[in-house]
Amino acid sequence: MSKPAIGFVGLGAMGFGMATNLVKEGYPVHGFDVFPASVERFKNAGGIPASSLQDSASEKQYYICMVASAPQVQSVLFGEGGIVAGLPQNATLILCSTVPASYAQSVAKELVQHGRGDIHFIDAPVSGGALRAANGTLSIMSGAPDAALESGRFLLEAMSDTNKLYLVPGGIGAGSNMKMVHQVLAGIHILGASEAMGFAAHLGLNADKTAEAIKESSAWTWMHENRLQRMVEEDWTPGASALTIILKDVGIITTSARENHFPTPLCSTAEQVYLGALLQGYGSKDDSSMVRQYFSKPLRAVSNAKMLDNEADLRQLVLDMMEVTNLVAAAEAIAFARYLKVDLKQFFGLVSNAAGSSRQFMTRGLEMIEGNIDMQTGSEKIDAAILRLERAVQKARDLHCPLHLGNAALNTLFLAKRAGFGDESTVSVMQIYGLGM
Amino acid sequence: MSKPAIGFVGLGAMGFGMATNLVKEGYPVHGFDVFPASVERFKNAGGIPASSLQDSASEKQYYICMVASAPQVQSVLFGEGGIVAGLPQNATLILCSTVPASYAQSVAKELVQHGRGDIHFIDAPVSGGALRAANGTLSIMSGAPDAALESGRFLLEAMSDTNKLYLVPGGIGAGSNMKMVHQVLAGIHILGASEAMGFAAHLGLNADKTAEAIKESSAWTWMHENRLQRMVEEDWTPGASALTIILKDVGIITTSARENHFPTPLCSTAEQVYLGALLQGYGSKDDSSMVRQYFSKPLRAVSNAKMLDNEADLRQLVLDMMEVTNLVAAAEAIAFARYLKVDLKQFFGLVSNAAGSSRQFMTRGLEMIEGNIDMQTGSEKIDAAILRLERAVQKARDLHCPLHLGNAALNTLFLAKRAGFGDESTVSVMQIYGLGM
Repeated sequence: MSKPAIGFVGLGAMGFGMATNLVKEGYPVHGFDVFPASVERFKNAGGIPASSLQDSASEKQYYICMVASAPQVQSVLFGEGGIVAGLPQNATLILCSTVPASYAQSVAKELVQHGRGDIHFIDAPVSGGALRAANGTLSIMSGAPDAALESGRFLLEAMSDTNKLYLVPGGIGAGSNMKMVHQVLAGIHILGASEAMGFAAHLGLNADKTAEAIKESSAWTWMHENRLQRMVEEDWTPGASALTIILKDVGIITTSARENHFPTPLCSTAEQVYLGALLQGYGSKDDSSMVRQYFSKPLRAVSNAKMLDNEADLRQLVLDMMEVTNLVAAAEAIAFARYLKVDLKQFFGLVSNAAGSSRQFMTRGLEMIEGNIDMQTGSEKIDAAILRLERAVQKARDLHCPLHLGNAALNTLFLAKRAGFGDESTVSVMQIYGLGM
Repeated sequence: MSKPAIGFVGLGAMGFGMATNLVKEGYPVHGFDVFPASVERFKNAGGIPASSLQDSASEKQYYICMVASAPQVQSVLFGEGGIVAGLPQNATLILCSTVPASYAQSVAKELVQHGRGDIHFIDAPVSGGALRAANGTLSIMSGAPDAALESGRFLLEAMSDTNKLYLVPGGIGAGSNMKMVHQVLAGIHILGASEAMGFAAHLGLNADKTAEAIKESSAWTWMHENRLQRMVEEDWTPGASALTIILKDVGIITTSARENHFPTPLCSTAEQVYLGALLQGYGSKDDSSMVRQYFSKPLRAVSNAKMLDNEADLRQLVLDMMEVTNLVAAAEAIAFARYLKVDLKQFFGLVSNAAGSSRQFMTRGLEMIEGNIDMQTGSEKIDAAILRLERAVQKARDLHCPLHLGNAALNTLFLAKRAGFGDESTVSVMQIYGLGM
């Protein structure tokens, strides 16, 4: 039995990989993009070029939308000559773009208003980067009514890794919320990678050795490991992961946080630094270029020749700063997820295998999720974490090195201390988000 | 009776004004500076040039130190051929440099250790700028044992405005603490002036009209009014008030806050933005150049020609953002002052007449100082202030305009809301600093 025809819009870095992967899997994929060059490239990779949006949708029982933002989704779905008008009865429409949950919900409503309640709509944002898109091993967070999920599941499976397809309970919007709280971590850790390496450079530490130490320590983040090479090589244009992409995702987070009157001090701090860099012209560059916000020369320019007497001590400052900041980042993400009633077990499983992962999230984050506030043997107290972080922050200050996240994390811990949690386990920092434990 | 000889070190912008004012008042002032050109300039202004530090101190019953930082103070006082070794018995030594309170206290101890407990030491940081220094109308915050104050009072009076000489209770360090908590406001408002004007530019608002509206509104700050012209004219080099100066003061604040494990989220945010600008080469430029962190063109480049339909609405966003941010800034400064046991009535009086003043501090700040948390007729609730600020923050985000302080203030209010104070008066934001009311 031949495979069904698939309509596809949005052949950018991610979309191109996703669409060509489906081509490799034997699907006739009719791809469209506003840039004719992207359509041509898709044709050369074995895809079927669509001459228009309507052409990409007409008679396609399955359709995947991977344009860049909610306004673009709105335009391609409901604009003149758009997808919704072109889809046949009972078609399945999978929205893989990262959008606010409230927007995904508005699409479901608008389909009904347009008399197209027959369409099986799935909210299914993805994560994992262009390479995993092309390999069909993305993480996918999909929420929808059961009938829609049943209809589109074979496509979600074709695009995702076996153990990385998350069917998120809660219907339309739940997938987008899951992606969003994951991006809280991604948005903080991307800047955090630059912050740690910039601080190390101010300390005179060799970048490669510092990175190796971070990788082996409890300060590890997936983002640091992933961005490191591009950061050191200064391989920034065109960006493998442009600043504008994480800025868009972070904007979804802070906008949603504002709608909910929920504090996200670290993510919000990262956003402001990203906006400052945008103003300086870094928008289309790789987000690893954020290191320039901390250190004005290439990391490799740090002299390697001079021996540092106290190299291990200095490196420990970087590890402490990054580790404690990541702990507060985990608290912020988990608190926001709890507030939004995201399934926390599933959230933990997702993050463990995805770009938002950090060793702090995997260990102390799990304790936060399990609501474990008892003082355990070996569990660090907030007062002790403060001492480690403030030592690093003071050193950075002495060197005139900005530490946007480190300072935001330290102030968050100070607020937790002032609220009376100083001699409780660090996981108690959760309590300042007003959710209990 | 002829006036006594005065020794003076530190003939920079402020010190030169202070020293020449004393010359005008008829004192023989023996001035020294590491830059010979400054000594020459002082000579041309009627001062007596000292050939060395020791020469400036030898046989001077009164000595004023106005070098730039604690390390410089340490060097000129206790270094080889320094002031302390040169001063006669029972001399009076007035330290006008801005230093940490803990450093001023260490000077008192070290004098005793050097066998110079006979010296009357006064901790007396000043505020007011070069013009008021030259007019003898500075604000001075002086703390010392009574005998020392009695001995040096005529000089403090000669340098200050009649109603701006504050004899701060608490001995050595109390003056420096008073200056420091004042600078919490100054450090936030300097960046806040740029943030408001940068936001206005993104909104397409005319700078002069916006500034006029700010001046007449409850969003007014002394710093905004003072920095406005230099900001608009881009008259930045050499800086009338260089970025490095406020950066040094803010560093004293955050270092002290860390020592006390006390949260100062807004001041800390401002510091990180200042450090970022330092990295970009703005160190010696006027701090009004911080507007470049928000808007990449001159403010005057904003087209004035096009009529904005909703000009009043847009301007209100700027006023709301600045006003609510200043309210949170007032809470941060007052909370830190309370924690340090600074005399709050005196603090209020000082700020009212000084560079840290804001209309929010004068109104809501006074309520905070008086511990007035009762809901009064017309007193805005935290929830209502959140709504005003988040509307502005969202608009700025839509325009890709950073709002470092606005976002930090909003997150602070969100934390207050999550702690249960949403339907209390905005002065209740004080409670997240863990001091009670």
